[in-house]
Amino acid sequence: MAVSRRDVDVAGLVDRARGGEPRAVARLISLVENDSPVLREVAAALAPHGGHAQVVGLTGSPGVGKSTSTSALVTALRAADKRVGVLAVDPSSPFSGGALLGDRVRMQDHATDDGVFIRSMASRGQLGGLSAAVPQALRVLDATGCDVVLVETVGVGQAEVEIASLADTTLLVVAPGFGDGIQAAKAGIIEIADIFVVNKADRDGADQVVRDLRYMQSLGGKHSTAGAWRPPIVKTVAARAEGVDDVIAAIEKHRGWMEEHGELDRRRRIRAAAEIEAIALGTVRQKFAEVHGSTALDTAAGRVVAGSTDPYTAAEELVASL
Amino acid sequence: MAVSRRDVDVAGLVDRARGGEPRAVARLISLVENDSPVLREVAAALAPHGGHAQVVGLTGSPGVGKSTSTSALVTALRAADKRVGVLAVDPSSPFSGGALLGDRVRMQDHATDDGVFIRSMASRGQLGGLSAAVPQALRVLDATGCDVVLVETVGVGQAEVEIASLADTTLLVVAPGFGDGIQAAKAGIIEIADIFVVNKADRDGADQVVRDLRYMQSLGGKHSTAGAWRPPIVKTVAARAEGVDDVIAAIEKHRGWMEEHGELDRRRRIRAAAEIEAIALGTVRQKFAEVHGSTALDTAAGRVVAGSTDPYTAAEELVASL
Repeated sequence: MAVSRRDVDVAGLVDRARGGEPRAVARLISLVENDSPVLREVAAALAPHGGHAQVVGLTGSPGVGKSTSTSALVTALRAADKRVGVLAVDPSSPFSGGALLGDRVRMQDHATDDGVFIRSMASRGQLGGLSAAVPQALRVLDATGCDVVLVETVGVGQAEVEIASLADTTLLVVAPGFGDGIQAAKAGIIEIADIFVVNKADRDGADQVVRDLRYMQSLGGKHSTAGAWRPPIVKTVAARAEGVDDVIAAIEKHRGWMEEHGELDRRRRIRAAAEIEAIALGTVRQKFAEVHGSTALDTAAGRVVAGSTDPYTAAEELVASL
Repeated sequence: MAVSRRDVDVAGLVDRARGGEPRAVARLISLVENDSPVLREVAAALAPHGGHAQVVGLTGSPGVGKSTSTSALVTALRAADKRVGVLAVDPSSPFSGGALLGDRVRMQDHATDDGVFIRSMASRGQLGGLSAAVPQALRVLDATGCDVVLVETVGVGQAEVEIASLADTTLLVVAPGFGDGIQAAKAGIIEIADIFVVNKADRDGADQVVRDLRYMQSLGGKHSTAGAWRPPIVKTVAARAEGVDDVIAAIEKHRGWMEEHGELDRRRRIRAAAEIEAIALGTVRQKFAEVHGSTALDTAAGRVVAGSTDPYTAAEELVASL
């Protein structure tokens, strides 16, 4: 979708989005997602309004009830009159935009509520990692008045770790019978979880899952320092909304702890630094193509193929010519 | 593993590796894999000797018999007196080095053969994509005399597409009962396969797999042009070495076709360009940290968090200061 600059009244759009108009929010996300010519203008217009929303990431294996948990959290947050954004991120999907994912159907409970904004995004970037679209969409939701943004990952492994790095607070959702303990430990997810949610806690094996998590925590040791955050383990039956208020209490408690210990600022700085760096590298990449035309890189590649130079020397020359 | 420059006689190591000494090959791969101080020196020393080996990628879902196929291909290539390299690449694993993966055990048939060099590599790079170590390891095996390098992926999805981009010839291995048709189409693998191998062809459903592949090919249409390469479908029972010679004939035919149509050079140029660009971006990334100290990026990040600038403006300033 090419959007020419003169078609978009960015300031007006930001005003309407901040006034609570879902279509304006959707339009802003589309602008940042499609790398439109007004992307920078949008980013600049949003900058003064950010920093309010708490970004909460939900990770966990397929089947543990992430979508049900997200939906139950939305209901509870709405009952407390919070404005809520939901980003469902699927790093393996080439599809993006407003489309509802298959298991997003249950989120339609909230589809007519103007206090909830739901968006599905594909997210694989050019360099293999998460695309810049996800942090930019978070900035839109933050600056336009969301109190909480829930980021739910579809998919497993590396993607979850990456998405956790975007969140202020990361929830690891597990359930009996999914062998999540071992899987999570393998993926390094245990290390990044701020809150453990044991969903489907009415099923056999829930207490064993809690014990497994406690045991793994005891191995870590990093939480034994005075003042350190010890991730709580909260049991839920999300489908019946049981325990959801406890999750919300844990999220609020985590925010309080982060603010008290300077951790919220620290995490957001790390996130912003990664974001700036990724954008800067994207710019440099464009420069490689633009400044020299595509011929310089192609010529260098031809010399490497012919064996008259090596890739490191060629790369050095490319950088030097910037 | 820190390796100081004076400890390594690169020229001598390259000579010994080219003379067929497996330990010297292993050492060279370790040097490029660990980003050692002599990495550039190694790359420069290898450059004049490359371009001989045909790089053959094997992709396919777990369970279709990739390892068995790789092993059978090694046996057949050795019978034809070819020197063979095998890289088993696991993009999801944090482990690298000479360690044998679990299902690599069957490759031990070849462990005492100096004409075969086998290496397992982890491969997730800093930017999320494949690390530079894989193409560099390919360059080592190419320059030190391998006629064929087989690159076998462990894992699925994005990783397979990435690894196919490193190969001259990509084999998609499928088998009855794995629903590979649909899976492969989903991942876009069908598009990048040069040769389809239907393994376990003695099982029920093998003919149906062949028909499914033919049908999917007919949908593509791109192979209908005169002179275009139409990926052949080869049936094998790799565990009994049946059909393996047909696979090797197809690999040789594909190389002939690529050479005739300038495709080998074209693919290798694209590969070299991507490699140069990745190295150059890595260098730029280091410069961001080195030139300004880590403080510049951190200060910019602090301003973004405070809302006094946006990430795009901050990135622009970072690039401008290079």
